[in-house]
This record gives sequence, C-alpha cells and structure tokens, in this order.
Amino acid sequence: MELPILADRFKCVIYEKNELKLLDRRLYPHRTEYVVCRDVESVARAIEDMVVQGAAVIAYTAGYGLALAASMSKNMDREELRKMLLKAGERLRMTRPTGAELFHVIESSLAVGLKSIDEGRDPADEISRHVYGLMVRGEEIARKTGEHASRLLDDGDKVLTNCYAGPALVYALLYAREKGLRVKAFVPETRPYLQGARLTAPTLKEAGIETVLVPDPCAGQLIKRREVSKYITATDRVALDGSIANKVGTYLYAVVASKHDIPFYVLAYTGPDRKTYTYEDIIIEERPPKEVLTLAGMDTAPEGVKAYYPAFDIVPPKYIAGIITERGVFHPSEMKSYWG
Amino acid sequence: MELPILADRFKCVIYEKNELKLLDRRLYPHRTEYVVCRDVESVARAIEDMVVQGAAVIAYTAGYGLALAASMSKNMDREELRKMLLKAGERLRMTRPTGAELFHVIESSLAVGLKSIDEGRDPADEISRHVYGLMVRGEEIARKTGEHASRLLDDGDKVLTNCYAGPALVYALLYAREKGLRVKAFVPETRPYLQGARLTAPTLKEAGIETVLVPDPCAGQLIKRREVSKYITATDRVALDGSIANKVGTYLYAVVASKHDIPFYVLAYTGPDRKTYTYEDIIIEERPPKEVLTLAGMDTAPEGVKAYYPAFDIVPPKYIAGIITERGVFHPSEMKSYWG
Repeated sequence: MELPILADRFKCVIYEKNELKLLDRRLYPHRTEYVVCRDVESVARAIEDMVVQGAAVIAYTAGYGLALAASMSKNMDREELRKMLLKAGERLRMTRPTGAELFHVIESSLAVGLKSIDEGRDPADEISRHVYGLMVRGEEIARKTGEHASRLLDDGDKVLTNCYAGPALVYALLYAREKGLRVKAFVPETRPYLQGARLTAPTLKEAGIETVLVPDPCAGQLIKRREVSKYITATDRVALDGSIANKVGTYLYAVVASKHDIPFYVLAYTGPDRKTYTYEDIIIEERPPKEVLTLAGMDTAPEGVKAYYPAFDIVPPKYIAGIITERGVFHPSEMKSYWG
Repeated sequence: MELPILADRFKCVIYEKNELKLLDRRLYPHRTEYVVCRDVESVARAIEDMVVQGAAVIAYTAGYGLALAASMSKNMDREELRKMLLKAGERLRMTRPTGAELFHVIESSLAVGLKSIDEGRDPADEISRHVYGLMVRGEEIARKTGEHASRLLDDGDKVLTNCYAGPALVYALLYAREKGLRVKAFVPETRPYLQGARLTAPTLKEAGIETVLVPDPCAGQLIKRREVSKYITATDRVALDGSIANKVGTYLYAVVASKHDIPFYVLAYTGPDRKTYTYEDIIIEERPPKEVLTLAGMDTAPEGVKAYYPAFDIVPPKYIAGIITERGVFHPSEMKSYWG
C-alpha cells in the first residue's frame, strides 16, 4: 500500500550519511522541496521555522539531529563527544518547549548515544538506527490504528474530518477501499492555517480518495443534510476521563454530529496520555492574534481591530462514539480501565 | 446618531443621472472605492461579483439597475421600452437565488416602470424615486429593528454574530450604549468572503463598539465557555414556519448556542417573506468552488481538488429565541399569525 508523501514519514524525514533531508511543509503542496541540514543548529532552526510540522515528524527530526551532531565529531575524545551530544540535546529541546513526543525521542536518543560512546561504538550509527526504529514503530502504530478505523467504515461512507488527521486516516480510507468499499472525504479548510486545504486535501487526493474541500462553517450543513455519514479526526491529547483535545472547531462539529446521530470517532494512535487525568489538565494554547488578522500575508481587517485565537477545542466524552488506537476501538469511558 | 459608512445605505448605493455608484465591498475596508455602472449588465455583474453584498443593498442595486436601463433607452417606443425593461428585470433576477428582498424590489420597480411607460411618464425617474423611497423606508425599518433589539441587551453583554448583520445590529449596539450599557461584539471572520473581518469588524469598530475578531470555528468554544452571552445575526429570509436562512455556519452556532442556553436572536427587519411557507421553499445558493480554492487570490489546494460551497444555512424555529422586526420581537411560532 503506497502512502501519499505527507503521510509517509520515510519520505518526509530522510537521514543519510552527514545529512538530514526534511520535506518543507511550508511550501507543500505548491512545491515538493527538501531542506538539507548538515549540523545540529540547522536542524533546530528547521523545527523552529516550521519546515517540519506534526508531533511525530518533529520528534524524529530532533532525534536525527543528535545523530548528525555525533557524525560530525569523529576526532573528539569520548569526554568531548559526551559533552557535545548533551549540548546538542539541550539545543534541540529548546525548539518547542511543549512537545511531549519531542522530549521522549531526544531523551531516548541521548541515552542510546551516551551508552554507545561508553561502550566504544559509533554513536551516530546507533542513534540513527534507534530513530529509524522509532519511525518503523510509529508507522506500525499508524497502520494498525488506520486498520481498526477502517472496520468502522461502510460502503458509501462520506467521512467528515478537520485539520490534518495524519497517516491513520489515510490508512483507514485505503484499507476500506481495498475491501471494495466506496468512501469519500469532506475536508474543511481549517482557518487560519489551512491544514485542511494544504495538507489533508492534497494527501487524500494523492491517495486517490475522492475529496471535497469546504469552508469550515459548511460542516453543520453537511451533517444536517446527511451529506456526511461519519466524522473522524485525530487528537492532540486524550485524557483518561475520555475527553479529547483537537483543533478548534472540533467541538462545534462533534455536538452537531451527535445531534444528528453521525458518529464521531477519534484517531488516538497510542491512546490517552496517562498523566492527563481530566480535560482540566489540558491547557488550551492561545495563538497570536496576528494569525487571525492576516491571510496569505495580507491584512484582513483594518488596524485596531482586536483578535482572539484559542487554537484547540476540548470535546467531552459524551460526544465521542469511539477512540481508535493501535490496540482497537474503545469507548471513551474505557480509557481509564485500559490505560489509567 | 451617525452610522459607519457600511451601515449607511445612502453612502453605499448612489444613483445619479445615467450612473449608479456602488461602494466596492470587495476592497473595503482596505480601500473605499466605488464601482460605477452605466448599464444593466454591469449592474448584474456587480451583484454577481460581490461588489455589493447584503440583501437590502443588493435589492436597491437591482432596482436602480432597472432605472439605469430605462434611462439609457430614450429613443425606444413604448413597446420596445416595456420589453427591454422586462428583459432587464429577468437578467437582474438571475443574479442571486436566495434573497427574497431582491425579487420584491425588482417586481415593484418593474411595476412602477411599466405603469409610467403606459401613462407616458419617464420610467427612469419614477423607478429611481421609487427605489430611493424604499431606501428611506429601509433605513427607518433598520433603525426600529435595532431599537427593538437593543431592549434585549443587558449590561455586560458579549454578542456573538456572524457574517454581516447590517445596520440593525449597529443600531442595536449603539442604542444599548446610549442607555449606558457596556456591550462587546465577537465577530467570526466568515470564510471564504471574510465579511466578518472585512465588513462587520471595521463597521463596529468605526461605531466605537469593542470588537474581537475570531476564526469561524472558535464560536463553539466562545459559547461553551460563556465568553459570549447572546448570539445575534441578520437573515436572508424568514419563512412563515419560523425557519430562517442565513450565511452558512449559522446552523452550527445556533445549535450549540441553544445547547448552552445562549439565546439566538434574528434581525429580520420587515419580518418573514409571505410567500415562503416553510424552509422547504428556500433554495440554498451554491457558490462557485473557486471561492473555496483561493484565498486572497492564491490557490489554497493543488489542482484537481474539488470543492463545495453551499453559502447558506437554514435554522429551524426551535433554535431561535426571538425574531426581531421593525414591529417588535416575536417568537418564531408567531410568524404565521402576524404575517401569514
């Protein structure tokens, strides 16, 4: 099963001897170009400047940044190499102060690197093998999650999504089609960053799935007229109480979908975050007002108009029909007993 | 009470001998420029191309389009003039399918024009006087509607709206403030045309009302967190069954507002359309996919991605707390007994 470029992590983050090639998501889908990094500083900047986006891809990029640092330091003694690697880890950790997956990958990659230095092996080789292993494992999680999701799909299903749900959604639709089901996707454009228009719609189109882009507020009408039959999104965090956080708009769509008996499913990959007990532990990120006041680099409103952009919604468990993980489909009420 | 330019119809639609000057809402608020029309085709295109927006302004523009047609045809005999006027009416009627006001103004202007031809008077003069009279009357209706709406507002109210609710909303907020009430407005940007960002936010700001622009999907969160206390929109059509049509998105917000006990009020000016018995009589206009696929003149998605843009939502009466007209505030169930 061939994945579209954006859903295929191995085509987005490519580590070769002495260089890391990163698909530039700021240019995609208008241009498919790679940023080539040859030292840890350029990797850190690529993360900061949004060359790479999405928690998993950012984390792999940082891991390979450490491998790159180690590979450039062949003439150092063990102690110098240790210091340099720890310093590189610090720099990469600073790129996105809130990404949990980023920290996990940096920590485990550092541990692998330091151990290999101690034991006299090549840290660059070992770190890069470790990160590659994480990517293989991540890919497997996405595939399994998508496979479980595909079992929820029926012939003729028209799937509403929003923002960018990642490879699990692509897998879900591709597996459904492999089984001979006709499936179609409706994609809200997702203002202000347009992830729906720039990432989801091109990715699904590349996968050969019939895809229709709509303005965000059209989702209500699609639901009411039953022009969609299922609503599926990714999530930025699942709490143990079964609440989920996802791109702002998810709450509106989930409430109206529930009202019209359109089930709302969440692609949760590895499942809930064990440290997030309830929705109250989730902090809603407020993005800069500038992101609302500009559109493709132009001002939308005159100077002096204030703006407000809370970027995420929390959806309570009562609106969620199922949380789909690599282990299967769970009811939100089951989060605590399976993961808590 | 001085109105902001956009809420002042006499500054937006200016008919002078042989030309009609229309404030170009596509450029506003970045530039305050007028499109000058000298024949009926250019008037029809100005409506189709969104130079003018908003039910009332579109209707006056079409009325003046007929006056313009009549004024350009001095050498025709009565029969030719009649035919030409009827044909011009046909052309103007085709411009937008959802607005009832457009059809009323075209019909009454045509009647005035045909009568003046029969009775040997100048149809251009009579039609333009007729349309001007409608504008004066419309201004009075807007003021009264806004005054009734202002009585529903309380000190500290934070009003959610969407798209552009016209002068009645401006009057409502100004009257409330005149009474010493503190009021604030939250304005979703209203993709794809950004009427919220380009028309509503600058107009309310010009009126001196505290105004906050948000991305459309944020409305759900504002409602859920009670960051708004009332939801007020205009309407493109009220049916006698109490259903209303308004910009797509209105249904989503109305359902979620109702769920959280935030009342949804509709500014309906003259009230329901007597020929629209139920919501089934309202045709939802589908706008060209191009309007979703571009943003500030740039493509948002790659070639081949399909798009769909049904521009209006229908909201059933159960979600509506009150329909505000020049005659006062009515429950949606009262439409038929008062107007049917």
